[in-house]
Amino acid sequence: MTCGDEHNELKWSRAAAEEAEAVASIKCSGHGRASLDGLPIEGKPACQCNSCYSGDDCSVLLPNCAVDSGSGNPLFLEPYWMKNAASSAMVVSGWHRMGYSYEDGSYISKELEKVIRRLHEVVGNANTKGKYILFGAGSTQLLNAAIVGLSPTPPQNYTGNHSFSPANVVASVPFYQVYKQQTDIYNSLSFKWKGDASLWKNNSDSTENFIEFVTSPNNPDGRIMEPVLKGSSVKTIYDYAYYWPHFTGISSPVDTELMIFTISKLTGHAGSRFGWAFVKDRALYERMENYLDVNSIGSSHDTQLRALVLLKSVLKDKARGLFEFGHGAMRKRWVTLNKSVSKSRRFSLQKLRPRYCSFFKKVTHPSPAYGWLKCERKEDRDCPAVLRAAGVMGRNGSVFHASNKYVRLSLIRSQDDFDLLLRKIDALVSQE
Amino acid sequence: MTCGDEHNELKWSRAAAEEAEAVASIKCSGHGRASLDGLPIEGKPACQCNSCYSGDDCSVLLPNCAVDSGSGNPLFLEPYWMKNAASSAMVVSGWHRMGYSYEDGSYISKELEKVIRRLHEVVGNANTKGKYILFGAGSTQLLNAAIVGLSPTPPQNYTGNHSFSPANVVASVPFYQVYKQQTDIYNSLSFKWKGDASLWKNNSDSTENFIEFVTSPNNPDGRIMEPVLKGSSVKTIYDYAYYWPHFTGISSPVDTELMIFTISKLTGHAGSRFGWAFVKDRALYERMENYLDVNSIGSSHDTQLRALVLLKSVLKDKARGLFEFGHGAMRKRWVTLNKSVSKSRRFSLQKLRPRYCSFFKKVTHPSPAYGWLKCERKEDRDCPAVLRAAGVMGRNGSVFHASNKYVRLSLIRSQDDFDLLLRKIDALVSQE
Repeated sequence: MTCGDEHNELKWSRAAAEEAEAVASIKCSGHGRASLDGLPIEGKPACQCNSCYSGDDCSVLLPNCAVDSGSGNPLFLEPYWMKNAASSAMVVSGWHRMGYSYEDGSYISKELEKVIRRLHEVVGNANTKGKYILFGAGSTQLLNAAIVGLSPTPPQNYTGNHSFSPANVVASVPFYQVYKQQTDIYNSLSFKWKGDASLWKNNSDSTENFIEFVTSPNNPDGRIMEPVLKGSSVKTIYDYAYYWPHFTGISSPVDTELMIFTISKLTGHAGSRFGWAFVKDRALYERMENYLDVNSIGSSHDTQLRALVLLKSVLKDKARGLFEFGHGAMRKRWVTLNKSVSKSRRFSLQKLRPRYCSFFKKVTHPSPAYGWLKCERKEDRDCPAVLRAAGVMGRNGSVFHASNKYVRLSLIRSQDDFDLLLRKIDALVSQE
Repeated sequence: MTCGDEHNELKWSRAAAEEAEAVASIKCSGHGRASLDGLPIEGKPACQCNSCYSGDDCSVLLPNCAVDSGSGNPLFLEPYWMKNAASSAMVVSGWHRMGYSYEDGSYISKELEKVIRRLHEVVGNANTKGKYILFGAGSTQLLNAAIVGLSPTPPQNYTGNHSFSPANVVASVPFYQVYKQQTDIYNSLSFKWKGDASLWKNNSDSTENFIEFVTSPNNPDGRIMEPVLKGSSVKTIYDYAYYWPHFTGISSPVDTELMIFTISKLTGHAGSRFGWAFVKDRALYERMENYLDVNSIGSSHDTQLRALVLLKSVLKDKARGLFEFGHGAMRKRWVTLNKSVSKSRRFSLQKLRPRYCSFFKKVTHPSPAYGWLKCERKEDRDCPAVLRAAGVMGRNGSVFHASNKYVRLSLIRSQDDFDLLLRKIDALVSQE
């Protein structure tokens, strides 16, 4: 064998590849990672430590550090990607996809579309046949697009008389706060936030238009949800961010009019801001597409390439590796947390049932993304404060328009965050 | 020398780097390029040809093909990036920046922020000191954020009485159509589109609120613009997408309250959807940041890394290479197009003046992004149709709310598109 026999010589990509591998090889004790775009220390890339860890190599656990169990930062999947480094690496040339659109004039990579449809088929969680696809900056932008797309347009020069009604936007408490924020922020004549869906149960066959968000499994409590409102004047936006085998048994493929997904809770790449929607109705699809065009001229080509690389990597073993890892991690965390909380009379967690999972071809036991913890004592009116005092920073029940008898504990963060959470909960429970 | 002496052995990035280099080496006769995410032919990556070119290697010029001179697809810079392949290559690991936020909890890469501020200092086109920075999905999303951020909030339960006035949003004709589309799409109570700024010149010291878009240099006609409206009830959004040495002499750094930039017309990476805004006022910055959070939870980390890599590459020679290439290309195209049109009495182009450019340290002659072509004959009322008949697809004057005596011809597209445009214009002029 002579030099260069085994491998092709790399030209323009070598220096960037060497830099990326050098950064990746920086040791952070398993409690952090270095990034190409991390803040350098003395001009060199440095470890970015998980919260509560410190030191050049992240080896120091800070004493009395409050654990962040707030945001749904899906770092539980980071170890999976570290193990699958070769198939998930992405190399991009400086002149990659500079133009606004793809070959067909759209803002959608057809290769990525194919891979997404294939993934749903392999997982069996959604029927995508005969449905249009849209890409967005996370599911977040698509939720916006759906509200605008489903709402009526007021007559020209409308000045507020009552011959026109906006769409009433609702969700079931507890719900993901972004639905309300997005509805409120534009002060639109076309759509108005109207709170809890159940308040309108008897109104829903009126002439007023309703848009209901249905999140299934639900954020924060992991329940499988159905619409509360029905009838011809009701449109439903199905947010299926968590309808993956990590978090629930996939009983059957969903097949609704408007289905929204995100890569954030599927592969864990929340920072990529990539989501997609399947839309049955052509006119709605066109209205949503127009919104995405006007809002941001489509979605980043760099992000689309990243999603393509990641999902192709996932599909290499028909997604078994990803979901076995993900479900395994989530199930273990749920069991451990329940074991700890079950010793307590002061706290309780939501009850979830086993479900048959057609992907795993067996009944799977609960593995939700979040614990929806309740303070059972009457005097513990401010459950978030009880947890804060014990060094646990969850997300207040009130953020989900529920009472502060509840706190959402994120179970999808890094293993460090989970381990610390458990330690704090154990300590809190042992005080009883 | 022994094997592997010169270079480190690459591990996880090698296969992806080899794949990217293999795709990049596909020969497309200089009339196209292959992409990692291109539609494969028989399972292999294939050339994606420039419009009017065809064949496996894009070597066939289609006869009688209409030239696309419509969109501002900034492919004129593609050859620059092909020449600077090594410094602009990006290698990303599968676990890069999976979380929602950066180390400091924000959605903004601090390294990228530094590089952007440095670039403005080197170019001398904007004073960024003491200003907050925001990132968006192109400047597009930031224009939205600015409208929402600058608009008043109606009183709670407002039902359309007249004690509350929305912000009146205006721009000077001819203007970029997205300003109107974004204002209209939400049917907002907080902001209303009110057309041409000059219509409101005498109203602007009234109690009504105005938001004026000022695009300088202007899209479509390349003029340096000043606000039409002034006074305490007027807010100005400065869109500086084209305020780079490619397109105009940089006479002095701009230093306004709200300045919006985009990578699309700077490096040519329109497909990346990346822009930034500098904001002087803290309260406005916070409102815009909240909008970006609610609209998409910040901007893609993949895109931010790409922008970092590209801008670091640009700064390697203090941006001389990029702007000498870019200005050279644009100036040459403008001279050539003018030469052709100057032989005509039927058509004319906008007149632009030379300006001193502090970046090049000399007077530079006009090099606008677009030709704003006028049909001078009285009977040529539909100038776009005149051009269409000659095989030139420009953008109608009416799109910019001007008359269809005008057509915008994009000069920032690929060299092929420009060469074809020139051929068609030459032929049209020679018919006179």
